[in-house]
Amino acid sequence: MQEIDLYFDYAAATPLDERVLAAMQPYFRELFFNPSSPYRPAVQVRSAYEEAKADLARAFGARAGDIIMTAGATESVALAFTGVQHSSGHVVVPEIEHHAVLAAAQRCASASFIAADPQGRISPQAVAAAIRPETELVSVGLANSELGTVQPLKEIAEVIEAERVRRCEHGERRPLYFHTDASQGAGQIDIHPQRLGVDMMTLNAGKVYGPKQVGLLWAASSVALRPLVAGGGQERGLRSGTENVAGTVGFAKALQLAVAHQRGEFTRLSRVKQAFLSTAAELLADEVMILSPRKGCLPSHISLSIPGVDAERVLFLLEMKQMYVSTGSACAANKGTRSHVLAGIGLDDAAIAGSLRITFGRYSTEETAKRGAQLLAEVVRHEQQRQKSRKWGAQ
Amino acid sequence: MQEIDLYFDYAAATPLDERVLAAMQPYFRELFFNPSSPYRPAVQVRSAYEEAKADLARAFGARAGDIIMTAGATESVALAFTGVQHSSGHVVVPEIEHHAVLAAAQRCASASFIAADPQGRISPQAVAAAIRPETELVSVGLANSELGTVQPLKEIAEVIEAERVRRCEHGERRPLYFHTDASQGAGQIDIHPQRLGVDMMTLNAGKVYGPKQVGLLWAASSVALRPLVAGGGQERGLRSGTENVAGTVGFAKALQLAVAHQRGEFTRLSRVKQAFLSTAAELLADEVMILSPRKGCLPSHISLSIPGVDAERVLFLLEMKQMYVSTGSACAANKGTRSHVLAGIGLDDAAIAGSLRITFGRYSTEETAKRGAQLLAEVVRHEQQRQKSRKWGAQ
Repeated sequence: MQEIDLYFDYAAATPLDERVLAAMQPYFRELFFNPSSPYRPAVQVRSAYEEAKADLARAFGARAGDIIMTAGATESVALAFTGVQHSSGHVVVPEIEHHAVLAAAQRCASASFIAADPQGRISPQAVAAAIRPETELVSVGLANSELGTVQPLKEIAEVIEAERVRRCEHGERRPLYFHTDASQGAGQIDIHPQRLGVDMMTLNAGKVYGPKQVGLLWAASSVALRPLVAGGGQERGLRSGTENVAGTVGFAKALQLAVAHQRGEFTRLSRVKQAFLSTAAELLADEVMILSPRKGCLPSHISLSIPGVDAERVLFLLEMKQMYVSTGSACAANKGTRSHVLAGIGLDDAAIAGSLRITFGRYSTEETAKRGAQLLAEVVRHEQQRQKSRKWGAQ
Repeated sequence: MQEIDLYFDYAAATPLDERVLAAMQPYFRELFFNPSSPYRPAVQVRSAYEEAKADLARAFGARAGDIIMTAGATESVALAFTGVQHSSGHVVVPEIEHHAVLAAAQRCASASFIAADPQGRISPQAVAAAIRPETELVSVGLANSELGTVQPLKEIAEVIEAERVRRCEHGERRPLYFHTDASQGAGQIDIHPQRLGVDMMTLNAGKVYGPKQVGLLWAASSVALRPLVAGGGQERGLRSGTENVAGTVGFAKALQLAVAHQRGEFTRLSRVKQAFLSTAAELLADEVMILSPRKGCLPSHISLSIPGVDAERVLFLLEMKQMYVSTGSACAANKGTRSHVLAGIGLDDAAIAGSLRITFGRYSTEETAKRGAQLLAEVVRHEQQRQKSRKWGAQ
């Protein structure tokens, strides 16, 4: 896949791994049977489906029975919020979360949107301060999709556990759950829900070189959920509809590969990121602001800003050189709105207007990252020159 | 695909057409970009996605802007009911509808479940009698998934239109919409929503040789819907989540093929069905009850019963001969419950226990249908013999 050497938008989409596609192929045609049908070939398809769910669960140390397959991360997030929406409880979410989480929170009876620090980190203290006696759900993404900031989930889980203990001691019976969208981070850092201290976790196949519109919600058996889509009773009645066998088999393969190479990929991507940052620092010196935190950040992510430069023009000029980056999350970018994440960490309009998100992945190398930083510097210089001449022209 | 010669369960699942798979392939790897990203290759993917939606719309004479892509028919049905669920109106659905429709109706403030006639037909008079001033939605499937009975949608649409006129004349402003799940029937009979007289229509790629977990809801622009899944704002805000580009491209190809060959396939399947029925009549004479109506039925469907014979044993014995049929819809079959459709048309327990659903499709021929009927007769004779010897043994 030569043409994606300078694709630096892996947080928006990843190409399907060829081993994943190979694993999926039989379930499109030969093994197309409805997994709910009773005859032998269909039962084989059912087994393959259940085995894929078991593989998914094993990849993060969970039980297959606690997984609900969904059509992507957005539906998984929506499902995670159904318990509290039904009970009219209160939810706590960071204001810099993905729109899927913000939209789900807005559908609850009451919600608190907590602020992040300037590096996009959510402090456990901020979570503690936002929790009320009627809070039933806290949802904090494993890593922020724009900045790459890894959140202190374990510390937040301790805050939540302390509140549970308090409720127990006071005879209060309202449940309190902790959900994380781990879509960004899977394949680079630990996604073991018990180690993270969460009760629910969202994963997305489309972010780990698996198929699009395939995701899952893992939920501890204590969590009460309500189906968004009811009918035939699939997924323990929590998500009806004929199962996406090919997609689930593909997701299982993709997640297994992602987790198996997690440590190596973390190290490798850290070098790739460093190559980009060094070259950018050398060529653009003080002009570029790195918004992603130096520590506690995914190695895949660099959010940066060159204030005074129009990022949309930079994106367009880079595109002419077959280099593809983002100005924010893909959904927001499409709508032409300013990033709520960057506004949320207190950036001014000029800095937001000059911001780019560069995200590395499996086909990125130190070489391509360096080349990317060089092209970025060239384009920025060209833009600065153009602005200078326009100013002279205007005088 | 030699091994599916005697697969007679096309209503449960269809194999992906190889032309459909070929159309999907580029969007798994080379053209994997997020359609919401702003750079050229992603914009090309966006164009392909929009073109696929336009092709889908064209296949049934609608506008692409009125289509919402969903993960299969069940979600599409659930979405069709969101408008009325939000407003607390009343809904009217036949009691023999698919579980997806029944479950959606049960989530409404109030619902009437109307009875079918002994052939599974819903009379416009029954719909008229069930409509109340607060009714906001009537949902009747184009064809029943177990019996194949084609419903008189146009006549039901006239009943609904008459009620709309009455409301208009009385200054009542409550809307009344007509939804159909056309999953069974597409590729055999007309699915043009304006000709059918419906305001909303559900279609399922998995029933027309397209991918599983891909469906759509077509809704006239007057219909107010509410998203089940909110977030990034895709599908006009009615269904968020990164688009299933490969799946949508595949669905478009599959539906185009299905509609293009609709008339020929109707005629061909009618001959296939006749071959089965004649052979079965010859070999099983009066013992077999044909439950599907002789007229006004999909040519793909035969629901039959051999009272006194255990259909589950028949299914098992046929399976040994690589012949695959169903004892009811796949979802119900899996749960080991009796068909609510057959109970709904007034069948007694013995007849239900002896019932089979045989559904033909693209790989069925007059030859294979004859062979199927012969195998069925053999197995039934074997079972009758076995029961006779057990009776003798018991005496």
